[in-house]
Amino acid sequence: MAGDVPVTPDLILAAEARLAGHARVTPLLSSPFLDAVAGRRVLVKAECLQHTGSFKYRGARAALSALPEGTEGVLALSSGNHAQGVALAARELGLKAVILMPSDAPRIKLDNTAALGAEVVTYDRATTDRDALAAEMAHARGLELIHPFDNRHVIAGQGTVGLEIAAQTDTRGADVLVCCGGGGLTAGVALALEARAPGLRVRPVEPEGFDDVARSLRAGQITPNAARPGLCDAILTQAPGQLTFPILQRLCGPGLVVSDAQALAAMALAYERLKLVLEPGGAVALAAALFLPDAVEGDTVIAVATGGNVDRDIFLRALNNGGADAHSPA
Amino acid sequence: MAGDVPVTPDLILAAEARLAGHARVTPLLSSPFLDAVAGRRVLVKAECLQHTGSFKYRGARAALSALPEGTEGVLALSSGNHAQGVALAARELGLKAVILMPSDAPRIKLDNTAALGAEVVTYDRATTDRDALAAEMAHARGLELIHPFDNRHVIAGQGTVGLEIAAQTDTRGADVLVCCGGGGLTAGVALALEARAPGLRVRPVEPEGFDDVARSLRAGQITPNAARPGLCDAILTQAPGQLTFPILQRLCGPGLVVSDAQALAAMALAYERLKLVLEPGGAVALAAALFLPDAVEGDTVIAVATGGNVDRDIFLRALNNGGADAHSPA
Repeated sequence: MAGDVPVTPDLILAAEARLAGHARVTPLLSSPFLDAVAGRRVLVKAECLQHTGSFKYRGARAALSALPEGTEGVLALSSGNHAQGVALAARELGLKAVILMPSDAPRIKLDNTAALGAEVVTYDRATTDRDALAAEMAHARGLELIHPFDNRHVIAGQGTVGLEIAAQTDTRGADVLVCCGGGGLTAGVALALEARAPGLRVRPVEPEGFDDVARSLRAGQITPNAARPGLCDAILTQAPGQLTFPILQRLCGPGLVVSDAQALAAMALAYERLKLVLEPGGAVALAAALFLPDAVEGDTVIAVATGGNVDRDIFLRALNNGGADAHSPA
Repeated sequence: MAGDVPVTPDLILAAEARLAGHARVTPLLSSPFLDAVAGRRVLVKAECLQHTGSFKYRGARAALSALPEGTEGVLALSSGNHAQGVALAARELGLKAVILMPSDAPRIKLDNTAALGAEVVTYDRATTDRDALAAEMAHARGLELIHPFDNRHVIAGQGTVGLEIAAQTDTRGADVLVCCGGGGLTAGVALALEARAPGLRVRPVEPEGFDDVARSLRAGQITPNAARPGLCDAILTQAPGQLTFPILQRLCGPGLVVSDAQALAAMALAYERLKLVLEPGGAVALAAALFLPDAVEGDTVIAVATGGNVDRDIFLRALNNGGADAHSPA
């Protein structure tokens, strides 16, 4: 896990250089209608427009492009967005990719990962020790394991989102809300903003029942969730990482927690007001910006919309009841 | 209508300067999955991400910011996207805006125009001579009429889409497909590309039954449609304009025509593969890129996705049957 060397601003700049011409610079969007809901200016970093439909391509490409010459292939463990990012980056760089995915991952994520040329191996989330399976398979097949968040180059790659935010807004005092699973993006953005715009304070956002990061930050130590499925599949990690947690602890404000109904309502508003497709786990930061006005500070709030890989039935559910329960507390 | 002076590249550059810091530079997106459908590389200019959800804000802001000092207000005639563009630009510039809209315009467009501070006056499409009503009302209330396409500054403002396309791609030989109503955007983009990337040839795209531009180009003279409602409400003009048609005639390749089913299927693919919300009239260029592969030339095709202001029932229809009839001829 390369845990011995810290993730530095230079590592993020190096990742940015390797990603140039490959990762998209995604726009920072806004709508007066969203401002009216939130009661302050809302800026939305549209990472659902990144290649493969989520920010994960950044970290994947950064990590794979840092592998030593002669690496034959990579193995990744992912519910679907890291999977697609690794699959595309591997195809671009001529590496073999094997992806371990839970059998109940969204259909669109399973299908896309395979369509991008990766070998997809599914496992039963309830009965499998996925980390043990991954380590065993990587060893047996001579593949490099690319951890979805506890990997310095992955964190650095995700940090390029923070560099872009700092360049795209003049705002220098605001909360930056980030949809948070294991904390790779959250840590990377926090490090980038520490270097470029230290008045922008990162706040992790999680779905109700999966607030391991918020609880870990409060407790001052890693405090896991139980493992179980949920609507926000992209960010249902059990705990922040060994590499990411110390960064979150040092740089982030308190975690925020939203309900599934609020995530769905944020999806409906992103559809209507930004013309963006978000998945539930990619909408929790926007949900917090819109529906938890008292929990954030400042005239402006920035939310990272992290992904848009959502099965059609879930998206229709968001459009059909979007907004109904959004204002009830999480 | 200021028809005496031609629209020049300098006028587009002047519009670009006035729009800087106001209009968004929208991204040029792509997906390997769309490339596979089209059989060539597909680049999508995502103007649905422009302020107010369509490119129309560009022309509106360009025209309103060119009005003489002392202008009190403006009047516009629009099924909804020009309406919202004018409403927002007027609010930003401190001008009064009165918008004449058909009473059967999409709900989202009527509501947004009013919410942006404009006075909305509706008329019955079947029984009203809208041009006469607009002229009369502008005169009676001392308002400047902002034509949706036959206005030099509007065309120049829309032309900034072409400047951005030329800057965002290295491709120098390709068809550029543009959703076409009265031809303001199509003419503006064609002029911009003539100056910046003459190997990029503009092709207007229209819905079946409303192909006045394609027929006019073939006939060598303006050849109107009957006026009637249809799915692609944003681009159901009866004829190209006096200002726009000569530009289209000089610069554009043959027009393309798609079916409503193809427009809906393109909306479903934009949702799934680009994470974008498109309205039917904003999806016809992408539909032609995807479903009329034999009608365009080159290894790459560029499609302008012009808007995303769609009522929920139409969007759900696109998601529910998206793709079903897409490959049948228009």
